[in-house]
Amino acid sequence: MNHPQPDRPRSLRMDPRDNVAIVVNAGGLREGAQLEGGLTLTEPVPEAHKFALNDLPQGAPIIRYGVTIGYATRAIQRGSWVHEGLITLPEAPALDSLPLATETPKPQPPLEGYTFQGYRNPDGTAGTKNILAISTTVQCVSSSVEYAIRRIKAELLPRYPNVDDVVAITHNYGCGVAINAPGAEIPIRTLGNLALNPNLGGEPLVVSLGCEKMQPSRMLPASKLPVLREESYVMRFQDEEYRGFGDIIAAIMQMAEKRLDRLNQRRRVTCPASDLVVGLQCGGSDAFSGATANPAVGFASDLLVRAGATVMFSEVTEVRDAIDLLTARAADESVARELVRQMHWYDAYLGRGDADRSANPTPGNKEGGLANIVEKSLGSIAKAGTSAITGVFGPGERVTKKGLIFAATPASDFICGTLQLAASMNMHIFTTGRGTPYGLAMAPVIKVASRTELAQRWPDLIDLDAGRIATGHATIEEIGWELFRMVLEVASGNQQTWADHWGLHNDFALFNPAPVT
Amino acid sequence: MNHPQPDRPRSLRMDPRDNVAIVVNAGGLREGAQLEGGLTLTEPVPEAHKFALNDLPQGAPIIRYGVTIGYATRAIQRGSWVHEGLITLPEAPALDSLPLATETPKPQPPLEGYTFQGYRNPDGTAGTKNILAISTTVQCVSSSVEYAIRRIKAELLPRYPNVDDVVAITHNYGCGVAINAPGAEIPIRTLGNLALNPNLGGEPLVVSLGCEKMQPSRMLPASKLPVLREESYVMRFQDEEYRGFGDIIAAIMQMAEKRLDRLNQRRRVTCPASDLVVGLQCGGSDAFSGATANPAVGFASDLLVRAGATVMFSEVTEVRDAIDLLTARAADESVARELVRQMHWYDAYLGRGDADRSANPTPGNKEGGLANIVEKSLGSIAKAGTSAITGVFGPGERVTKKGLIFAATPASDFICGTLQLAASMNMHIFTTGRGTPYGLAMAPVIKVASRTELAQRWPDLIDLDAGRIATGHATIEEIGWELFRMVLEVASGNQQTWADHWGLHNDFALFNPAPVT
Ligand SMILES: [Ca+2]
Ligand SMILES: [Ca+2]
Ligand SMILES: [Ca+2]
Ligand SMILES: [Ca+2]
Ligand SMILES: [Ca+2]
Repeated sequence: MNHPQPDRPRSLRMDPRDNVAIVVNAGGLREGAQLEGGLTLTEPVPEAHKFALNDLPQGAPIIRYGVTIGYATRAIQRGSWVHEGLITLPEAPALDSLPLATETPKPQPPLEGYTFQGYRNPDGTAGTKNILAISTTVQCVSSSVEYAIRRIKAELLPRYPNVDDVVAITHNYGCGVAINAPGAEIPIRTLGNLALNPNLGGEPLVVSLGCEKMQPSRMLPASKLPVLREESYVMRFQDEEYRGFGDIIAAIMQMAEKRLDRLNQRRRVTCPASDLVVGLQCGGSDAFSGATANPAVGFASDLLVRAGATVMFSEVTEVRDAIDLLTARAADESVARELVRQMHWYDAYLGRGDADRSANPTPGNKEGGLANIVEKSLGSIAKAGTSAITGVFGPGERVTKKGLIFAATPASDFICGTLQLAASMNMHIFTTGRGTPYGLAMAPVIKVASRTELAQRWPDLIDLDAGRIATGHATIEEIGWELFRMVLEVASGNQQTWADHWGLHNDFALFNPAPVT
Repeated sequence: MNHPQPDRPRSLRMDPRDNVAIVVNAGGLREGAQLEGGLTLTEPVPEAHKFALNDLPQGAPIIRYGVTIGYATRAIQRGSWVHEGLITLPEAPALDSLPLATETPKPQPPLEGYTFQGYRNPDGTAGTKNILAISTTVQCVSSSVEYAIRRIKAELLPRYPNVDDVVAITHNYGCGVAINAPGAEIPIRTLGNLALNPNLGGEPLVVSLGCEKMQPSRMLPASKLPVLREESYVMRFQDEEYRGFGDIIAAIMQMAEKRLDRLNQRRRVTCPASDLVVGLQCGGSDAFSGATANPAVGFASDLLVRAGATVMFSEVTEVRDAIDLLTARAADESVARELVRQMHWYDAYLGRGDADRSANPTPGNKEGGLANIVEKSLGSIAKAGTSAITGVFGPGERVTKKGLIFAATPASDFICGTLQLAASMNMHIFTTGRGTPYGLAMAPVIKVASRTELAQRWPDLIDLDAGRIATGHATIEEIGWELFRMVLEVASGNQQTWADHWGLHNDFALFNPAPVT
């Protein structure tokens, strides 16, 4: 590892074909700054923003990651700032003429012998935490279940030291919704599959009001797990045996205690890295996300895939504009076609609501140097590494394959995280450029910063500084390996993430494309 | 008040024109049961379900509340059970030929001299509670703000005994949403107006991440309140002055303490009843809701309107099928036309999502005896009493008129409650037949049971038993006056609701008709 001087003008170019690079230095660079290779900036360029490596005539393609991210709206001089206003937005790739599995990557050599200490579940999956969750079928019971959980944590949990946490799966679904409308299957299966997340030990407990539209048997049929056929797992507020709130809370606590007792008997055992189901996501991205954090995550993703794990990437709206690169990388044509089907579904969903493609990236993304959704997509896809895509799953579906998976979700951070948990995620990697205190109760979240400035400003929120790639203090490979090892340590309970340290655990956020009533 | 024998077969007919009545007795009535007026049941009829008062030929209208709720699918004998399967669903009233202000009720005599002890706000409104709320512009900061509030409650609130509570206005909006799509104005104005609710003392505090789509100035422009132009009301996580999570939390706590200090200096003063903004809602309805609780609330609603208050009813999907009765009752044609416009908007919203009208009522409603949405609508509208409708407001708009207002919202309980809070509700009346532990942090919720059995089974959740109307222990007028007096007592802080006693306060639930991205 070399230690370059921090003040030297530095830039990052992602691919030899690129005709732009980004400025690395905090605070940006002044007019006249001399970059590697003898290039001189003709005007000030903000940090993380692009400048031209050559003279670009009007209409010339702007190339980053070896891909055209748009066209020059006017002639751009070598060394000048290539800002959002100078780049046209290309059309999204048409979905009817995409390359299907035309460039499927060859499998990389397997990585043997990597393990973590996890909780083995009856269904063969493994947990990285040992959590009791209480599911709810309807919003009406949310605050009561939260009341019960406050009491469980105060009165019961101290007696069950091997149980990590008690979590309420609350939401605004279950009644007052068009439950038979197209799309309603998404929130329903999401809630059912959340209860089956590997970090919950196969011990679902469902609290129902009684008169709601989404009945417990619809959300989580007993056929889903052997234990559900043997033991009552549903508590209904409106059952006539409960005389008042005291009785209701006592009943929930009693059912919770049975499960706490069994969960408490579990111990961590050695599990192969192939038991990991790692969800990848980004939020609050900047131009460094796609240059430092996401490529490093991509390297770790390849390592995880080589170790036999499941790695999920998601966020339809952030991959849509580079979907041609993904369909080409599919393991086979049927996987590619399923990718296309998910893009079609989402195009139609956005079209029904008259949503505007240019709404993503956010103002913050743009201020951070991302010109448009194409550039953001390329940076986002960098998280997925270079493996073949072996499977595609719809929003809220449980992922049942190993390898690199596309789990279709919105990009909205907590909706994506909730859907990845339903997909059976037991470890989460989250990259951020602008910075966010993101965290989830059900799985550990490793937050990777794209810039050293952010990692240093938020030392008690950011778990890994990938900004060292930009400053030359580390390579993509080095950070990738560091992250891979951190995943195993966190999954084993040997290292705590900052989100878990502070208890920063957002509520679940459902994706419900159907109307409320 | 008379005290009839509990075991005598009893029934309720709502209007002299009705050809059905409902069974009142708990557990229903047996075949052969003899009812008042010499009618004999020809088969068992469940509690709250309808039976025929006359022989009804096939195709005959089934009349309840003096209104046709459907037609007999086959001949029905006098004294037999008129269940859901025997009633066709009539078409929803067409929106292009409704009576507009054709039967505007005359104003009833004013009720003078009724007051409550409330908190006077700078903008002229009055609070029934004295709450510090912390608004958020984006989901990313929710769990951090909740962390800050736990510390504020533990470390600061004990020193400010006149402040009732500290509440986080969290949500899943702000980023990852199509913020310029049609309908996006609804969640945005909802969040802005929530911060202006009269129970929050005009002291908004907004926590922002920094890079989110919905910037603080869009959610709550400083022009909304004089105080916002004088003092900083926005805290941004990503501001460079904050070094880590500790700094961020300290900054939120410091801004909170300034507001706690000012709120703590407030005292309750005598306010006229006309300062009340009472939101009406029902949830978990049964056939008794429309026969006991809702008519009693309707009577109280008329009293409140006579006392000069604002009374809001809502729940578009529950009034849609009886909208002709409401447009006729509008104070003038422009109010009636605005009602029609809101119905049109919602019809289109449901149509875009292919939602099925028969999805409401819920299975629980039907089991409780409500045959269809028409019958449910008539029972729901009973809450609105008999006054003229003086104003109509869209979802999340701030209500600025006195009298009986239709505030258009979905029927989904917490979405409706959240929108009514945004509309400036400072008191909430919630009727329930099947039973729900509904509660909100921002305004007191009086829960009215439609049945004595529920009120007795849940004595520590139900605030008022309107079931006494069915059993003959009280009249609609008596319960209506009791509720009116209870509203004044609760608004004055002299009586605590059960929801407040247990702290059953659901999270806010936004209505976002636009897509997520
Ligand atoms: Ca994002
Ligand atoms: Ca995201
Ligand atoms: Ca919550
Ligand atoms: Ca309802
Ligand atoms: Ca409702």
